[in-house]
Amino acid sequence: MSEDIKNEEVVDETIDNETVTEEIVDETVESEEAPEKSELDLANERADEFENKYLRAHAEMQNIQRRANEERQSLQRYRSQDLAKKILPSLDNLERALAVEGLTEDVKKGLEMTRDSLIQALKEEGVEEVDVESFDHNLHMAVQTLPADDDHPADTIAEVFQKGYTLHDRLLRPAMVVVYN
Amino acid sequence: MSEDIKNEEVVDETIDNETVTEEIVDETVESEEAPEKSELDLANERADEFENKYLRAHAEMQNIQRRANEERQSLQRYRSQDLAKKILPSLDNLERALAVEGLTEDVKKGLEMTRDSLIQALKEEGVEEVDVESFDHNLHMAVQTLPADDDHPADTIAEVFQKGYTLHDRLLRPAMVVVYN
Repeated sequence: MSEDIKNEEVVDETIDNETVTEEIVDETVESEEAPEKSELDLANERADEFENKYLRAHAEMQNIQRRANEERQSLQRYRSQDLAKKILPSLDNLERALAVEGLTEDVKKGLEMTRDSLIQALKEEGVEEVDVESFDHNLHMAVQTLPADDDHPADTIAEVFQKGYTLHDRLLRPAMVVVYN
Repeated sequence: MSEDIKNEEVVDETIDNETVTEEIVDETVESEEAPEKSELDLANERADEFENKYLRAHAEMQNIQRRANEERQSLQRYRSQDLAKKILPSLDNLERALAVEGLTEDVKKGLEMTRDSLIQALKEEGVEEVDVESFDHNLHMAVQTLPADDDHPADTIAEVFQKGYTLHDRLLRPAMVVVYN
């Protein structure tokens, strides 16, 4: 019976006990000197103490493992973030080059192939172009506004200056747009 | 003496915890039922048992933490591996496009800019071109051999068909070369 009660006490202590090791040391020394405690009491105290420590270590181990797993998953998911971000200007350059008038058929084909393989590589890693259907301040940056009218209601996008991209649910860079307002 | 050693181990430990294990309760009951052992023996056994469990849990915790750190570092270091590998064909395309005769000055500049920004992005993530000074089977793949002679000793590289790249100490793809043999 008293065993059960001790175990319950251990659990409560455990919850808000952080370090304070000095305390434990002192207690042990005191107990040894205190004449009124029996050898059995001391042995039981030692048993309770290590049980408590064991339980805490076990719980912490599980926490560490859980956190490590979460971190690993996040690192995997967003691993391409830095390189992808740095590649976007190359993609912009390619698209600008393709917009130049009077390219020969050969050059145009080469540029298109390069652009497409770049977009494909990014896509496979989870990078997608930001949708520009209607203005969304989470995904777009308004670099210029035009007065809205009957044909162009507020939040209609008039022009995209630079494409935006996401990596899974993260924004790599917003789309730079002109918006009716 | 053994008390001192135990107390020192206690100092390393920090923790907050929630949990109780069924296991422990069962064991306690069992020990209480053994008739030939004194209550003190049993209490001491229980203490030793939890001390051992605690020490093992503590050691395992440190192992888990160390492994998680190592894994995190490796994931970080090679995080760009997949995207980098997929980008290499785009870089090849750009270099092939640049080798075409009769490009206008504008197109040539645009292509060079794109190529350079791509190489720069890769370099910042740890990607480097494989050196082709002398044949190295760890870094090069011989797609053709030519007979070695006085002017071209064995292992001299005659031509590079496709550039190779490393990410830190890892080979992303070998250089495809013609080698004297």
